[in-house]
Parts: sequence; C-alpha cells; structure tokens
Amino acid sequence: MTDHQIYPVATGAAAKVVEQHQEPQDLVFHSGWRTWISLEEKSIPYKYNEVNPYNKEKHFLEINPKGLVPAIEYKGKALYESLILSEFLEDAYPSHTPHLLTDDPFNKAYIRIWIDYINKNIIPLNMRLIMAQEPEKQKAYLEEYTTALRTYTSKVKGPYFLGEEFTLADVAIAPWIMRDYVLSEHRGYNRAEVSPEWKAYADIVEKRESVASTFSDRKYLENIYDRYLRDEAQSEGAKALRAGRVMP
Amino acid sequence: MTDHQIYPVATGAAAKVVEQHQEPQDLVFHSGWRTWISLEEKSIPYKYNEVNPYNKEKHFLEINPKGLVPAIEYKGKALYESLILSEFLEDAYPSHTPHLLTDDPFNKAYIRIWIDYINKNIIPLNMRLIMAQEPEKQKAYLEEYTTALRTYTSKVKGPYFLGEEFTLADVAIAPWIMRDYVLSEHRGYNRAEVSPEWKAYADIVEKRESVASTFSDRKYLENIYDRYLRDEAQSEGAKALRAGRVMP
Ligand SMILES: N[C@@H](CCC(=O)N[C@@H](CS)C(=O)NCC(=O)O)C(=O)O
Ligand SMILES: N[C@@H](CCC(=O)N[C@@H](CS)C(=O)NCC(=O)O)C(=O)O
Repeated sequence: MTDHQIYPVATGAAAKVVEQHQEPQDLVFHSGWRTWISLEEKSIPYKYNEVNPYNKEKHFLEINPKGLVPAIEYKGKALYESLILSEFLEDAYPSHTPHLLTDDPFNKAYIRIWIDYINKNIIPLNMRLIMAQEPEKQKAYLEEYTTALRTYTSKVKGPYFLGEEFTLADVAIAPWIMRDYVLSEHRGYNRAEVSPEWKAYADIVEKRESVASTFSDRKYLENIYDRYLRDEAQSEGAKALRAGRVMP
Repeated sequence: MTDHQIYPVATGAAAKVVEQHQEPQDLVFHSGWRTWISLEEKSIPYKYNEVNPYNKEKHFLEINPKGLVPAIEYKGKALYESLILSEFLEDAYPSHTPHLLTDDPFNKAYIRIWIDYINKNIIPLNMRLIMAQEPEKQKAYLEEYTTALRTYTSKVKGPYFLGEEFTLADVAIAPWIMRDYVLSEHRGYNRAEVSPEWKAYADIVEKRESVASTFSDRKYLENIYDRYLRDEAQSEGAKALRAGRVMP
C-alpha cells in the first residue's frame, strides 16, 4: 500500500459529526484534526470535505500549494496551516464562544509560546520516536520525548493548560494525546511514567467532547501508523524529518 | 573568538535609538531585531536592554528558558519568540498604530501564512547557504534560496507585502533583507538576479524608517557573520541546522 491509498477517512464517532456537516456553508473545511476541534468547540457552521492530501490533486493544490490538510475555503478564499486556521476562526467569528485564545494579551502570547513548543519540539520528537528502528535510538528518543512532555506539563495549570478554560494549547496537543496508544503499544511509552501530572492532563484532554467526537476508529488509523512504525511513510513531514529539514 | 564575545552591540544608527530608550518603562525589551522594528513602528515606550544571549546568564534564562533574544518583561512578566512578541504588541497596545497585522481576519491569516513560510523556508535556507562550504553545495543552496524568495515575492502586492500598508510580513523578513549583502559578497547572490520584483521590494523595505534606524554598522556584524561563513558558529540555530533538527 502507498500512502495515498490509506489516507484517514472519518470513521466511528467522527463519521457521525461528518454526517451533520454536509450542507453548503460559507466555510468549506478540508479536514485536518486540530482545526476540526476548533470548529466543533465554537459551533461554527462548516461544510465538511474529506481530502486525500497524498493525491495532491490540482484543485487542492490551488487551495494549499503545500498540498497539506487542514485547509479551508472561506467565502471562496483559501487559507491553510492548522493553528493559523484556529486563530482565523477566533478572529472571524468573535461572537462564537469559547474564545480559545482567551481575551487577555499576556495569556494569548503565553499560549502561543507553548504552541510553538509543541510544534517545534513535541511533534517532531513524537515522529522521530515512531520512525526510529534501532532499539538504542528508540530508547534515546523516548527519553527526549518524555523530557519534552515533562517540560510542557510543568506549565499545565490543570485541568487544562491554562486552568479551567480549554484553549488552543490543548487543541494543539490533543491529536498527539489521542494517538499515543501507538507509542504505548510499540515504543515503550506510558503516560504515568512520563508523570502523574501528564497522565492526569492527557486523560482529561482526551475526554473533551470536541476531541473525542472527532476521533476516528483506532483500527483505521493503524494502517497509517504501520507505515510510520516501519519507517516507510512518504508524507511530507516524514520526508522532511528524514532529510533533516524543517517539517512543513 | 567565541560567539559569546561577539554578540551584536547596537552601533551606528541603532545606537542613537538605544540612547533614547534608557528610562524605566512597563516594558523592558531584551533586544532582538524583529520585535524592535515592531516597537519603533508603533512608538511603544520601552526600556532597551542589551543581552548577550550567548552567555546564558541565570537571570536571562529565567526570562527565556531557551536563552534566546528577543524577549521582554511586561510589568514584570516574561515573554519571548520574536513574532509572538510582535503579536503581543498588537494585542496589548491596540491604540498604537499602525496595526501591523491589519484589522481584517482574512488578511491576518494570510500574513501569518507567509510569515510561517519565511520562518520555515527562507530563514533556514538563508542560514544553510551561509554555512555551506563546498562550492557545489553553495550553488545548490543558492538556487533553493532564490526559489524560496521568488515564491514569497510572487505574493508581494507592492510596495510592501500586503500593498501600501507595512505589516508583520515585512517586519519578519526585514532583517534578512538588511543583511543580504553578506550573501552578495560571499555566496554569489544578487537581488536583481532573484527577480526585479524582489529587488524592488527589498530596496523599499530596507529604507523603511523603523528598519533603517535600528540597523547596526555593517562592520560590526562582519565579525559575527565570519563565523557563519566558515561554519564555525555555535548559536542554537546553527547547531540545530547542522544536526538536522528544528531551529529554535
Ligand atoms: N504544519 C501543517 C502540517 C499539516 C500536515 O502535515 N498535514 C498532513 C496530514 S496531518 C498532510 O496533509 N499530509 C499529506 C502529505 O504529507 O503529503 C499544519 O499544522 O497544518
Ligand atoms: N525563533 C526565535 C529565534 C531567536 C534567536 O535565534 N535569536 C538569536 C539572536 S538573533 C539568539 O538569541 N542567539 C543566541 C544563541 O543562539 O545562543 C525568535 O524568532 O525569536
């Protein structure tokens, strides 16, 4: 199987949410998980569109020249990059609550700093760990990943990153929490061994309605993860990581 | 010389701006160029503080655990990351104009997308090119860098990125425009050869008051660049690039 045959089709809980978003709307959503969580949190009307980003179809490349999901068309104009889309939803739908970036300038910046940490540290380390083949490398990367999660956790006020409010920091990390069973099954990772605080946080984020309701069946995701676990994935992210380049 | 002996002290035009920002203020600015341009554009009161980020002094690591400039203390609370700081200034000083992210949600997202492009493509490619030693590599990286600049330029409406307004996209790229003479002198780069449009854009950005007035003497920068040109720099960015890791 090649990557473009196994792109993630929404299944399970996620399929039900998809069903409810088939009507035309100002906002057409080419699905990617983080942005989906934002849309659901804020009850923004959207038309769901499933893209196979591995196919790089001409029309989709016109929307996002990088050929990646998520992307949106908003009144016919295209935008992409998951967290830029989340910020866009805050800006374009100010009356839709919750405000996932808060209304306080300092907290906004603070959330953005730790999102930057997730993007530059946690995600590449997660992927490196999954793609590592030799046991010594797996061990070293697991340690690095654990350290990065602990650093992040040290900033979590609890129950969510910023306290009682669910914010974009939680959105940014949620997909990697939901899929960490792959690391548990194949790379010796364990939430509680990272720290009790990390486990408590992860356990709460994964129960958040917007997160749980947009999750596809584990079984389906396994096909995709298998390619990463054998270091055969040809996604833009996997290729960049192997080449020592910036992830897209 | 090691990096920590040759950190950039403001000289020339920049030294005059520094002189005018010695009084105590709510905002203490640990200097880094992009954020400085934002501060000057918006005439925000700040106290200038020159940090030698290579020294990683304890007090500074408490402000930014990454030990990088720029950083600020705002009413005693610390924040860092150049463009997150620029966004913070937009949020915390709404009455200070110009609004460098515009007031339109779509344009905000559009600017953020192209800032992301600058951060993920233009800057790492610029650094790779400077640090490359073998002629074939220099040639290949110059080509890659030129292509990235052309991609960016294709989005420039002129005179600035978004048109008549100077925005954060221009702020984000300005330091790499101001220092491109290093590439011209040592790596065969030429603004006009990238494209006439790129040259026109670069020529205008470098004349912007906030950019020109915060520029230090070329002579001073040369010591720093020499280490990059010989691939001896030990900055966090240089080390990450060599290791094939994400730049901090
Ligand atoms: N930085 C991007 C990354 C997006 C990304 O890598 N998307 C993946 C799916 S999660 C994709 O479209 N992959 C297709 C490919 O790599 O060719 C974002 O946050 O939006
Ligand atoms: N992504 C950071 C990068 C900051 C950065 O690399 N700063 C450099 C000076 S321009 C620094 O502090 N270097 C010290 C070091 O590398 O140890 C930002 O945009 O603020």
